[in-house]
Amino acid sequence: MTRILALCLLVATLAATVMVNRAGAGELRGTGDLGVVVERATGSLLIVDRSERAAIGRVEGLGDLSHASVVFSPDERFAYVFGRDGGLTRVDILERRIAARVVQAGNAIGGAISDDGRLVAVSNYEPGGVRVFDAETLAPVADIPTGSKTVGLVDAPGRRFVFSLWEAGETWIADFAGGAEPAVTRIRGIGRNPYDALVTPDGRTYIAGLFGEDGLTRLDLWEAVPRPHRVLAGYGRGEAPLPVYKMPHLEGWALAAGRFALPAVGRHEILWVDARSFAEAGRTAVHGQPVFAVARPGGRQVWVNFAHPDNDTVQVIDTLSGEILRTLTPGPAVLHMEFAPRGAEVWVSVRDAGKVVIYDAASFEALGEIAAESPSGIFFTARAHRTGL
Amino acid sequence: MTRILALCLLVATLAATVMVNRAGAGELRGTGDLGVVVERATGSLLIVDRSERAAIGRVEGLGDLSHASVVFSPDERFAYVFGRDGGLTRVDILERRIAARVVQAGNAIGGAISDDGRLVAVSNYEPGGVRVFDAETLAPVADIPTGSKTVGLVDAPGRRFVFSLWEAGETWIADFAGGAEPAVTRIRGIGRNPYDALVTPDGRTYIAGLFGEDGLTRLDLWEAVPRPHRVLAGYGRGEAPLPVYKMPHLEGWALAAGRFALPAVGRHEILWVDARSFAEAGRTAVHGQPVFAVARPGGRQVWVNFAHPDNDTVQVIDTLSGEILRTLTPGPAVLHMEFAPRGAEVWVSVRDAGKVVIYDAASFEALGEIAAESPSGIFFTARAHRTGL
Repeated sequence: MTRILALCLLVATLAATVMVNRAGAGELRGTGDLGVVVERATGSLLIVDRSERAAIGRVEGLGDLSHASVVFSPDERFAYVFGRDGGLTRVDILERRIAARVVQAGNAIGGAISDDGRLVAVSNYEPGGVRVFDAETLAPVADIPTGSKTVGLVDAPGRRFVFSLWEAGETWIADFAGGAEPAVTRIRGIGRNPYDALVTPDGRTYIAGLFGEDGLTRLDLWEAVPRPHRVLAGYGRGEAPLPVYKMPHLEGWALAAGRFALPAVGRHEILWVDARSFAEAGRTAVHGQPVFAVARPGGRQVWVNFAHPDNDTVQVIDTLSGEILRTLTPGPAVLHMEFAPRGAEVWVSVRDAGKVVIYDAASFEALGEIAAESPSGIFFTARAHRTGL
Repeated sequence: MTRILALCLLVATLAATVMVNRAGAGELRGTGDLGVVVERATGSLLIVDRSERAAIGRVEGLGDLSHASVVFSPDERFAYVFGRDGGLTRVDILERRIAARVVQAGNAIGGAISDDGRLVAVSNYEPGGVRVFDAETLAPVADIPTGSKTVGLVDAPGRRFVFSLWEAGETWIADFAGGAEPAVTRIRGIGRNPYDALVTPDGRTYIAGLFGEDGLTRLDLWEAVPRPHRVLAGYGRGEAPLPVYKMPHLEGWALAAGRFALPAVGRHEILWVDARSFAEAGRTAVHGQPVFAVARPGGRQVWVNFAHPDNDTVQVIDTLSGEILRTLTPGPAVLHMEFAPRGAEVWVSVRDAGKVVIYDAASFEALGEIAAESPSGIFFTARAHRTGL
């Protein structure tokens, strides 16, 4: 009988072990403090825990993650990863596995999730257009061919997606309020070759950068049919036309205290621009050619990283004075910076050092490091609750 | 042998059942789309799922929940409930149980969580002062006696709490950047009898309402030692002094498109105030005496509820035109409105109908209802990622 009991306990233990392993793959926990780090070279995502300042898992098999971007489901459990190869992957960050994956085009550039979290849209180069999927299953919902390379895709309030057409010089608003069949508003006269765009955090202002001419084009999405307004003549091309691979990514604009901080193109400067009038309001000389200017949540400071050969450095600018508060050298190839949602700390990916460095955003003290394979983009789940990210 | 195997399977099944039940009390799921509804009469919290538009559990035994408020841990798993009786309760919304509870004073009014999520502060009437607790254990960290009833407690970036002293007419900033021992900055000359306060979403501007004199006092928390500025002369008291129980709660201010929408005191009006200059920018006539004016995230519309006897109604105001877009009648005693973080829908508590009604924020269509016991405040976990809520 003792032997039988022992055997039973063994079997019970094995059964329990299987379940514990399952729990190990999907531990009971909140998801508001999780995030992912894109490991571009290995096509993997490192899953991180902000509270522990630690990596807690890795998901592989995500394809080509060059220029990958990530959005999150409203429950902050699923990450949608948009790969350059047209792959759209739904990753379960609690279970640390791929929940669904489609290769939906040959060459894609970014995506977005609708404000109600039910639709995921991907913007495609090849073939041009936007494809929209059910966020839960990745089943196709809508296909919006544009006959043009499609760029600058963002979400806007009211189940809308906004995107621009490279060849056609148009911006389209696809409104899914009525269901799976979008109402599409076409806005002509955006300018020659829009190459990227951003939407402000309130979802009101859409700004497209132009490759083919000077300046940018601004739309007020609160208008029934927004009219294009040209702003910031000269921005985007700098003093001389630049090759396309040097065009600034517009998500590298910070909004702080009523002003945008913009990486100047081809110059060692940050431009300050009034967010209402779009008039230039000052410049700050910085260490190198800026890539991203990111506002600490609340906007008290702006953190800036730089292009090669100055990409070992990060500078922190005081928003009120426009002065450099601190110069940090996290290490070779600083690619991205992501703030905790209330701004207490900032995580910095240092690709060629194979690590993410975590700084206290107020004291600039290094709080920790996490090993990662050639880390690039860092995305915290808190993005689930924001517009235009 | 067969019998032994059967017995083993039974034991294994029992072991598995125990674990499944455990999982039933704490299902594996994301927490970004959860929330709680305060059930004041029964001292309980209803736990709700935004994605399912459903209640998923109830936690009881929270004491006196009149004027209760709630903040969330950064992982969006734990709700901190501040009761009027001085009770501070940490509720595990995944496991649906009380994780920790202290009765920390005789009579309390609100609380806040630090930007790093490590400290929870409670503001007390009796005895006056602020008590600060470890967010994980609720062990006491600091006690800040003020010799005065303490009101208007908010969090500010950099592990700071800001609060005001009713009798002393001061605002104090307690800075915990250095650890458990706060550096306290005392600002005198706030005015006679501050009774409530708010901080703007960027954590920069602290505004205290005054009971003992006209107007409000504004502080710029970006200044090293903020100086008090009196603004909005006449606001707060209306045309004649009001008894204290009619003073407007300042969290009922909406910030939309660069203007505040304020419930006017004792009038059937919403005041529009420029958020930079604090100059009045217009008025909107509304259905009754407004209680809360809440901006849809992004600020496109402002939703308003009303005091008795007009409290069966909600009005929606267009931010640009200041005109009433829609008048809804959710039912008797509409007490609170909470938006999904990206503004797709709004949940409205209707106390005397015993339900929460969910509206599409764009079409105003009722999307669902949830039964609740005399519901008052509704709090979604997305608040974890915001400053000053």
